[in-house]
Amino acid sequence: MEENNNNNFVEAITDKSVDFKRWYTDVIIAAQLADYSPIKGCMVIRPYGCSLWENMKRFLDKKIKDTGHENAYFPLFVPESLLAKEAEHIKGFAPEVAWVTHAGQEKLEERLAIRPTSEAIIGSMYAKWIDSWRDLPILINQWANVVRWEKVTRPFLRTTEFLWQEGHTVHRTEEEAEEETLKMLEVYKDFMENDLAIPVYIGRKTEREKFAGALRTYSLEALMSDGKALQAGTSHNLGQYFAKVFNITFQDMDGERKFAWQTSWGVSTRLIGALIMVHGDDSGLIMPPKVAPIQAVVLPIWGNKTLEGAVEAKVKEVGEILADVCRFKVDDRREHTVGWKFNEWELRGVPLRIEVGPRDIEKNQVVLVRRDVRKKEFVPIEKLKDKVTELLNEIQKNLFEKARKFRDNNTREATNFEELSSMVESKQGFIKACWCGSEDCEMKIKEKTMATIRCIPFEQKNGKCVMCGKNGPMVYFAKSY
Amino acid sequence: MEENNNNNFVEAITDKSVDFKRWYTDVIIAAQLADYSPIKGCMVIRPYGCSLWENMKRFLDKKIKDTGHENAYFPLFVPESLLAKEAEHIKGFAPEVAWVTHAGQEKLEERLAIRPTSEAIIGSMYAKWIDSWRDLPILINQWANVVRWEKVTRPFLRTTEFLWQEGHTVHRTEEEAEEETLKMLEVYKDFMENDLAIPVYIGRKTEREKFAGALRTYSLEALMSDGKALQAGTSHNLGQYFAKVFNITFQDMDGERKFAWQTSWGVSTRLIGALIMVHGDDSGLIMPPKVAPIQAVVLPIWGNKTLEGAVEAKVKEVGEILADVCRFKVDDRREHTVGWKFNEWELRGVPLRIEVGPRDIEKNQVVLVRRDVRKKEFVPIEKLKDKVTELLNEIQKNLFEKARKFRDNNTREATNFEELSSMVESKQGFIKACWCGSEDCEMKIKEKTMATIRCIPFEQKNGKCVMCGKNGPMVYFAKSY
Repeated sequence: MEENNNNNFVEAITDKSVDFKRWYTDVIIAAQLADYSPIKGCMVIRPYGCSLWENMKRFLDKKIKDTGHENAYFPLFVPESLLAKEAEHIKGFAPEVAWVTHAGQEKLEERLAIRPTSEAIIGSMYAKWIDSWRDLPILINQWANVVRWEKVTRPFLRTTEFLWQEGHTVHRTEEEAEEETLKMLEVYKDFMENDLAIPVYIGRKTEREKFAGALRTYSLEALMSDGKALQAGTSHNLGQYFAKVFNITFQDMDGERKFAWQTSWGVSTRLIGALIMVHGDDSGLIMPPKVAPIQAVVLPIWGNKTLEGAVEAKVKEVGEILADVCRFKVDDRREHTVGWKFNEWELRGVPLRIEVGPRDIEKNQVVLVRRDVRKKEFVPIEKLKDKVTELLNEIQKNLFEKARKFRDNNTREATNFEELSSMVESKQGFIKACWCGSEDCEMKIKEKTMATIRCIPFEQKNGKCVMCGKNGPMVYFAKSY
Repeated sequence: MEENNNNNFVEAITDKSVDFKRWYTDVIIAAQLADYSPIKGCMVIRPYGCSLWENMKRFLDKKIKDTGHENAYFPLFVPESLLAKEAEHIKGFAPEVAWVTHAGQEKLEERLAIRPTSEAIIGSMYAKWIDSWRDLPILINQWANVVRWEKVTRPFLRTTEFLWQEGHTVHRTEEEAEEETLKMLEVYKDFMENDLAIPVYIGRKTEREKFAGALRTYSLEALMSDGKALQAGTSHNLGQYFAKVFNITFQDMDGERKFAWQTSWGVSTRLIGALIMVHGDDSGLIMPPKVAPIQAVVLPIWGNKTLEGAVEAKVKEVGEILADVCRFKVDDRREHTVGWKFNEWELRGVPLRIEVGPRDIEKNQVVLVRRDVRKKEFVPIEKLKDKVTELLNEIQKNLFEKARKFRDNNTREATNFEELSSMVESKQGFIKACWCGSEDCEMKIKEKTMATIRCIPFEQKNGKCVMCGKNGPMVYFAKSY
């Protein structure tokens, strides 16, 4: 783990095609997004990864607020008695819960769970806060850390502690709750596609795959560049399940006391894993400009001693031009060669490289190199500002289009089980196939192919179940993370 | 705790002069800043309190970044063996540590502490990341939740779980570490005085009061309006203590391997408690405009039915004018009277109230009422934009000046122990008195008066210790939270 001191770390990255899993962790460690910690399954999010997460948070937080939600913060702990109130939910989370049993030298009277999710603690507060239909809807979101004890962990994709947001809303009617659930699914889609440049399929989860305690779960499914699917976010219509467990009632307009309708929805630092696996290549990360910690890196190329002053002055000028245009960094370190720096900033996925060398000064230009397509352009200084803005927009669009094409090219249709099975084995990707709706067929397909139903899309198309032949909807199958 | 449903909640607030402690919690609950949770000592930060914290974070985070620091995120857990590595530090925190002993059904091989602070976990990572003087300085900050099991808790002031930022930096030399420690003390002072309008005294803590493991601790001390002091933030020069414990070494320019020098510094949600106690009055909160969740509330006063449309149109116009000027809210609820709304928004401390009534429409004006001095002004619509900006600035300044005067008027000088003792008893506030520097005298004074040394200011003035008569510096004494 000597990534700081290894001058050849770029070469140390495994090729994607050779070992995708190793490529993934190599990139994370070498680009200093995260590092392993002394606690099994917990990672350290290093400044570069943290800055990426902050940018992602800023975009998503704005969208969450623009749709009428407010942030709040609830306790890290959930008393065991509170968590145990709802049998179905606890069954889903019990094996993963970390328990606090002692404080200082003393044993606690009651064990405290570290929140694996906050339905229970938030539900107990909502019961206290809600009295009348006038108190509804409650539209609250929380940015927090949660803990789930996982057997197998991987940086960002599955860690014991992770960061996320969890929305928890309460409504007067079932229709309102369903509307909210679908609205947030659309907010996530907008965020993933337009800010992270990750195309997603959306749809409903099967009964088997839905959130413990939910009426319906909807999810966003993205395709990683190794052909496996990743669940990128979920939005749950919780129905009245938690309302009944925690006694969340309100006096309705008609004077009657009724149970409220709830939703919850969340995305996590897992999205960073998705971003890496969708856009990265053998040279390392490729950051979508909108959320990139550094959008452009400026590299002075010193040339001979007599011109150094001129290069320095030009770099300063470039910095002044870029000040209001993008997040940039000047890398004028003397201890590294220019070639080393090219590799480093490619590895870290900075969308634009701006080179300023002695020859460019004469011509009053700079050299711009795009990370995504590696195209090189000579740009006159007076056009730099507009060009940078234009290229960052173009890179953002290109990354999305490239990922969308890959996803579309790797979405195939199977009309029978043999086709489905051979597609899963040979090509991976998403496979559209019909399914009768029974858990029995769902499980049989999973056992035989390792593929699961990722979601049931909204655009319904019916046909014969590839397993039993009964009529049912077309769904997305895939092997997944 | 029926704050949601009590139409007369303003009257329910205890007067400050009658019972300051109750006034404090009444305000928090009634203004919906926070609420008690089912977990002893843990509070829920409600949307209004969370929005305040977010605004505070935004200002402070910018200042932290502008001074060259980057954010990162380290694990919530600290293995017992890691925490136990340094005897002095663990001694300070052991009684307050919450321990995770089980995950799912299984007992953990090693207990995990929930971070009470992160020196240990961060130090272990720094040891891994730092190799050469070129890797220094490391300037990292973390926004996180921490847990300290407190016997007596109070919302914001002392809670089992709280939110904070903790900066952790590593330097090549002792001088650099000291410079950093003092720089962050100044950053905090700037933040508290200019953004929160809370005047602070700064200085060094005594050996007895310094952070467990630190070389020197500096603190910021604010005066609450009940005359008690509150430690609002601390900045520690950690020396080489943790570097030696966690083996954080680097190869220096001279080729020698040396232990690094460290600092750490933090402020927490406790500052919200300070903000309440410094600015609030018998009617409730008074928010400093810069961090106020809502800077202005617009209240339509309907008058008779025929004019309602005109009032509504004018309120809309006001909203358009304010859009880029401030964070505002239109309260057009029909179920509450105007008087009730006046009380509610005073209670919640909104700096400016803007009334739009039928008579104002004729004159094309609105009524502006300041929360701090309750001054009423009629403002022509065309001047509204400038006036709101001007008044928000004025309120911010006035709150600071008022608090500074109160603090200055309640800072007294004592030349002997009797004076000190009677001042503590009768008037509270800060008392400047000389102290020889011995823990013995420090403890004697504390035992006899309940006052502690808050800090030793930088401007040294010497005199005779009020306890033993030996020569020593003038320091600030006070009873404190």
